[in-house]
Order: sequence, then C-alpha cells, then structure tokens
Amino acid sequence: MNAVELIERKRDGGTLTDDEIEWLIRSFTTKAVPDYQMASMLMAVFHNGLDPSELAAWTDAMLNSGSRLALDDLGLPKVDKHSTGGVGDKVSIPLAPMVAACGVAIPMMSGRGLGHTGGTLDKLESIPGFTTQLDPDRFHAVLAQTGLVLAGQSETMVPADREMYALRDATGTVPSIPLISSSIMSKKLAEDLDGLVLDVKVGSGAFMKNRADAQALAETMVGIGNRAGTETVALLTAMDQPLGRAVGNTNEIRESIAVLRNEGPDDLTEITMALGAEMLMLAGVSGTAANARARLAEAVASGQALELFAAVIAAQDGDPNVIDDSSLLPDAPYTFELASQRAGVVTKCDALAVGVGAMRLGAGRAHKEASIDASVGIDVLRKVGEEVQVGEPLALVHYREDGRLGDAMQYLNSAWAIGDAADVPPLIIDRITG
Amino acid sequence: MNAVELIERKRDGGTLTDDEIEWLIRSFTTKAVPDYQMASMLMAVFHNGLDPSELAAWTDAMLNSGSRLALDDLGLPKVDKHSTGGVGDKVSIPLAPMVAACGVAIPMMSGRGLGHTGGTLDKLESIPGFTTQLDPDRFHAVLAQTGLVLAGQSETMVPADREMYALRDATGTVPSIPLISSSIMSKKLAEDLDGLVLDVKVGSGAFMKNRADAQALAETMVGIGNRAGTETVALLTAMDQPLGRAVGNTNEIRESIAVLRNEGPDDLTEITMALGAEMLMLAGVSGTAANARARLAEAVASGQALELFAAVIAAQDGDPNVIDDSSLLPDAPYTFELASQRAGVVTKCDALAVGVGAMRLGAGRAHKEASIDASVGIDVLRKVGEEVQVGEPLALVHYREDGRLGDAMQYLNSAWAIGDAADVPPLIIDRITG
Repeated sequence: MNAVELIERKRDGGTLTDDEIEWLIRSFTTKAVPDYQMASMLMAVFHNGLDPSELAAWTDAMLNSGSRLALDDLGLPKVDKHSTGGVGDKVSIPLAPMVAACGVAIPMMSGRGLGHTGGTLDKLESIPGFTTQLDPDRFHAVLAQTGLVLAGQSETMVPADREMYALRDATGTVPSIPLISSSIMSKKLAEDLDGLVLDVKVGSGAFMKNRADAQALAETMVGIGNRAGTETVALLTAMDQPLGRAVGNTNEIRESIAVLRNEGPDDLTEITMALGAEMLMLAGVSGTAANARARLAEAVASGQALELFAAVIAAQDGDPNVIDDSSLLPDAPYTFELASQRAGVVTKCDALAVGVGAMRLGAGRAHKEASIDASVGIDVLRKVGEEVQVGEPLALVHYREDGRLGDAMQYLNSAWAIGDAADVPPLIIDRITG
Repeated sequence: MNAVELIERKRDGGTLTDDEIEWLIRSFTTKAVPDYQMASMLMAVFHNGLDPSELAAWTDAMLNSGSRLALDDLGLPKVDKHSTGGVGDKVSIPLAPMVAACGVAIPMMSGRGLGHTGGTLDKLESIPGFTTQLDPDRFHAVLAQTGLVLAGQSETMVPADREMYALRDATGTVPSIPLISSSIMSKKLAEDLDGLVLDVKVGSGAFMKNRADAQALAETMVGIGNRAGTETVALLTAMDQPLGRAVGNTNEIRESIAVLRNEGPDDLTEITMALGAEMLMLAGVSGTAANARARLAEAVASGQALELFAAVIAAQDGDPNVIDDSSLLPDAPYTFELASQRAGVVTKCDALAVGVGAMRLGAGRAHKEASIDASVGIDVLRKVGEEVQVGEPLALVHYREDGRLGDAMQYLNSAWAIGDAADVPPLIIDRITG
C-alpha cells in the first residue's frame, strides 16, 4: 500500500478500508510510515473525520499493536470507568473500592494529569509509598487479591497510542473526536472488560466546552465500545465548577476517603453513586439502578469499601494508615484564605480558573516533564448557589512558595462571582447507551 | 514562537502574522521545526488556505531562504514565462529566443518533467551535449552573451521550496493553490525580473482540470507577483488536447525549431505569439499587442530568433547543427501508426491519455528517479475538428520496446474519439492582470 494515496483519499473526504487502516497503524508503529506522513494523515482526519467503520478499524488496529489483559481466571465480571477529565475529579478513587466491594473486578488503568485537570495516578501517589507502576504479573496479583487495582498503563499495551499521542501533541491534532475516542477506547478495550462506563465531562473545566461536542464524543465512544462487544454506557456530567470541594492531590485523597465514610460532598457522592450504579448494572450484579445504589450504599455503610481501599493501598506498597491518620499525608506549609468582597449567593465558581490556579500552585503539570507537589491545592469553600458574607472565605489555598501563590491568585481572584441568586445546574446532563 | 500554536491557529482557520510565517519557514529550513510539524501545517493550509497577506509573507520567506539573481548589469529589461505544464507544451523553447531577439533578457530557469507533462530541461537535453546545469557565473555569462539562458534552478536559490516540495510530495499536500502559487512565485521572484507572464493551463492534460481552479491559481499567482513588485500577467490556455503535434522530447525540439522557422502548428505558434506579446509589453519594448506580435514575427522572419537559439545551444555545450540537420537528434528505432477505425471528424484527442501514453513509452518519468528516453514519443496527426478516413493515422508512435508500446497503446487506443462534427474550443480562455 501507499501512504500518500491513503492521505490523499482522507484529505479529500474519502473512506479508508479496514485493511488500509490496519496497514497504516502497523506501519506507523514499525516506523515504515514516517512521522511526517502520519502527521499529515492526522490533520486530514482532524478535518474530515472517520466514519463508524473506519473508527472501529482504527481502534482495533491500535488495540492490536500491543498485548491485552486476560482476566477470565478471576471468575468475576470485569468493569471499568473512564473520565474525560475535570477539575476536582477524583471519582475513580472512591468508586473503584465501592464497586469492587459489590463483587465486580476493577482492573483500572489510569493516566497522569496534564494541564489543569489532575490525574488519578498523581493523586494516589500522594499516599506515602503508593506505587502505580505494576508489571503485568503484579497487576494481576493485586486484582486477584483485592478485587481492584489502580495502576498506570502497561508499556506493552497499545504502544501505537503512545506513539500517536506524542505525535498528535506535537502537531496540533489532539482535539479530534475520532482520534480522542479511538485513543481512549483502544486502551480500555485492552483491559478485557465486560462493561465500561464513561464519564464525559462538559463545561469550562472539561476538555469539551460545549454540550454538542461532549455528546458527539460520548456517542462516538459508546459506538466503538458496543461495536467491539464491550457494553458501554456514558454519562454526560457538568464540569462548570470543580467536582467536590478539594482540588489538588493530598486534599483529593482526603475527600475520597470522606466519600467512603459517607461524609463526602453531595455532588461528588452523587456522581460516584451514579457511575457505580451503571457499573453494577453492566456487570450483571444489579438489574436496576435502585438496587445498585442500595448495594453501593451498603458497601460504604458496612465499611467494606473503605477496607478494600486500605487493602489495595497496602497491596500497592502504600501506607493504609493514611485512612485513619490523615496527618500521614503531605501538607503544604502555608494556607491563605480567599475572602469574599461581597455578600450574596455564589453565581459562578469557574472550574477552569480553579484548575489553572491549582496547577500554578504546583498541583498539576504545565508541561509533561513538570513534577507535582502533592501537598498544595485549593479547598473550594463556596460553590454555586451557596451564600457568603463579606470577608467569609470562598477558598482555602494550600501553598508552598509565595511566588506561586501570587501566580495562582491571578486566576483565583476572578474564579468566583457573587450575585443575588443562582440556579444550580443539573450535575448529570444525559445518559448515552448503545 | 511555538510551532504547535501556529499549527492550531491555521487548523482552526485563523491567520498567521508575517513574523510567524517568516519564523516557521526559516525554522523548517534549519530543521528546528521538524518535518512532522510542517507536514501537519501543510495539511492545515491545504484545508484552510492562506489569505493574500499570509501568502505574500510565505512567498517572501521562501524567497529569503536562498540567494537571488542580480541582473541589473545587463542593462536590459528582464522578463520570464512560467507554464503550469501540459502535454506537448514546448512553448518556452521557441519563445525565449523570439523574445530575446526583441531586446529582452530571458533568465529562464525551468524544471524537469514528472508524470505525464514533460519538462523543458528534459526536452532541451535531447540536443546532443546540451547542459542545463550551469553554475551562477556561467548562467550569467550565457545570459550576457546571448540574451537568454535555459537552465535548471540553482541549488542556492529557494532551498526552502526544494525541502518543502519534497515534503508535500510525500504528505499529500501538493494540490493546494496557495502552496503551488508560493512555490512557483518564490522561484520566479528570485530571478530579479521586471515582468513575468504565466501560462496557466486548464483541461484534462493540465494540473488544473477545471476553469475555476485554474482561474483561482492564476489570480493568486498574479496577486503575489504584483504585490511583490514584479508586474505579472497570466493567460489561461486550453489543455484538453496536446499543444502542437509533438509529444516527447526529440520531436518537441523539432517542432520548436519549426516554430522558429514559421513552420510550426497553428495552436503552438499562436500561444507562443500571445505569451511573447505579453512579455514584450511587460518589458516596455512594445506598447500594444499588435506591435509586439509584429516584432516577434519579424524576429522569426529575419532568422534572428533561430540564430539566437543556435547561439544559446552552443553556449550551453549543445550541438547547434541540430537546427539544420535534424538527424543529429536521437531517433527511436521503431514507429507504429495508430489508424482510425472510423471516418469522420475528431471530437476528442485527450491530452491526459496522450501524455500518459508518451510517459509509458519512456518519454516522461512515472517517478522521480526514472530516466528519460529522448527518442520516443508521439506525433499527433489528427486533432479536434480535423477529418479522418478509415485506416488513416491518428498518431505516429516512436518507440523502442514492444512491451512499452503495448503499455502506451492501452492509453492511446481510447485517446481519440471520432464523430460527425466538432467545435474547436478557444485556445486562449482568459487573460488575468493585477
């Protein structure tokens, strides 16, 4: 086959065959098709898209570039959840032990944060000793022992996606729905799942800023999953303000533990329950959402979910005593209260501004090589619809260096707006199934 | 500056500043911007174009990547012609000596052929000894001595275009009007011209298959030239059937000499006169097309144009005796007559089919590394509007290998159509000025 001919066809809005896509991705992975040809193909895909059949072949070719998990020996239904990322989105951390406590295996492979949205791995690593780098045997052993595992992607899985993501990042071809979808779904399909739930976030703090784009992304991913035989459901959820009240790393672990004690903020608990209910239904454990929610509530009330979280922390070399002794988590040396200059009701608490503010403090990465300071972050004390008096705090900022505080405040100062009344928009916007 | 940011802006339909374009092209030339980033930028330009200001900056940046001619010492007006290429298009060869004979310096830098359209350099090299590779000093010396020079592009001129063309060729980004225009015009503007005439061909045998695209290309190039201070005029000319009657190399040189003896085919002579008239007007030698045509006719009638052609052949190491002794040109060992199976009037003589047929015989290059057989080619004996009887020849094919003849005949057999009557379409379709 000839790469130029395939590029020209896609450039002109044509369709590639399954064999052509398989050849293209394989040749890219083996460097037989050079980066410059793939870069021009990616920009052509950005402009002209991939139809459902092309998308299935593209995802399949990515998937086939590496190894897959084989988890049938667990004898349990296997379900995972993926979020497109948001500010304060630590849902995976309480969700995985809650669902695992209901008898579902959770082989969760997560990513690191880049930009204003934190990564689950980064948050977990604020637990002293916790490792997210597990070789395949250990990954399987932790999962078999505890029913869940919270780790990074294996090097041997979907190498084509690693190569392609690096190229997309350098060539302005990241924000393409077919490329995002095939990247996410190839990694998730490699996990040998019975079901997958997707949390597609929409709003200022999300990758997708408007509902139409988020809906298209969700529908595309659900289509790929179901076509590949992995039952997939997506929830569209709001990301105009941070999720929960903690934005950072240490503070997000504390908030995750609070959810597992049934003491978490309402919005975070509700999204965790909603996604968990989908997972139990996909796993065949519950036939209805009401039954699933009751089981999840019981997993929390019985302390079983928190026990499982302690077990997985221990199995991944972390100190499980953090659960009972919060002082074992790293704390920033200084705090600063952002006070309200006006009395009224919060009408805006902008997720993007809070997320960028947290990144500037050191809680996130502005670029791939940056290191993360687990101790810094922002506690969001007032959210949309909540009342505030003059001088009362909107946020508590945990910081280490004065220069970084000033930098973060440039974003935080305009993150809140106070008015007379506010509508609190719905948290869960839509549910998309195959 | 940041290449990704510029790619993203162009990808989304935005505009790049002069400084950004200058930086981009310079960084591409020095490899600071890698090929894969330029490839994605080129595909973004393919989809979103360049506005006139961007196009001027892009062309200027290409131009500034290398050296330029400096020809003021000649004391003559300097004008050149560029054709977008067609089947049987040997116009440059008789045109240059005709215009030079009227007191205009012609510093003509041409290209080689690729695909079904032959290159002027390839045709000239069928003259024994003729060299088209001249170093800058020799280029200048030939021009000073004879008033014209017919050579290849200097290695030191517009290196960015050579790099970029190679990348475009490998990444499906050749057929983009702004990229074609800036490529052509940067090379022509480097020639230090007072005026430039463009022959933009439209039809099956041309790069531009339809009038709208050809018109857009012509207007874009005329805009670049005039904006850069080089007065530029374009003629849109027909390329549905071959130009003249010779398609090959040796036979095109013979036909060029015939034009210089006022014995050439009407269409070829007419296009040569029309383009030559534009050049004399751009040079300030003639104030009207009628005056210019009279001067060109006189240059032919007096033998002065033919003498100049002999002089430039000799100055470029060729054997000028080919002019009077056509047998000095290489001839193919075999000929084949393609006979008409029907009596009537030729309604079609497809330039693309004849061009591809000639290429298959060995007269052109299917790929860049292919060598050319100067002796093979096709004499077109019947063109649109001409009558033919059953068994009379439509073409005389000059060939060397039976296998190649068979291959060529697959195209030639369907190149002609015979009917009851035919309209002969106009040769010169439009004239575009600044």
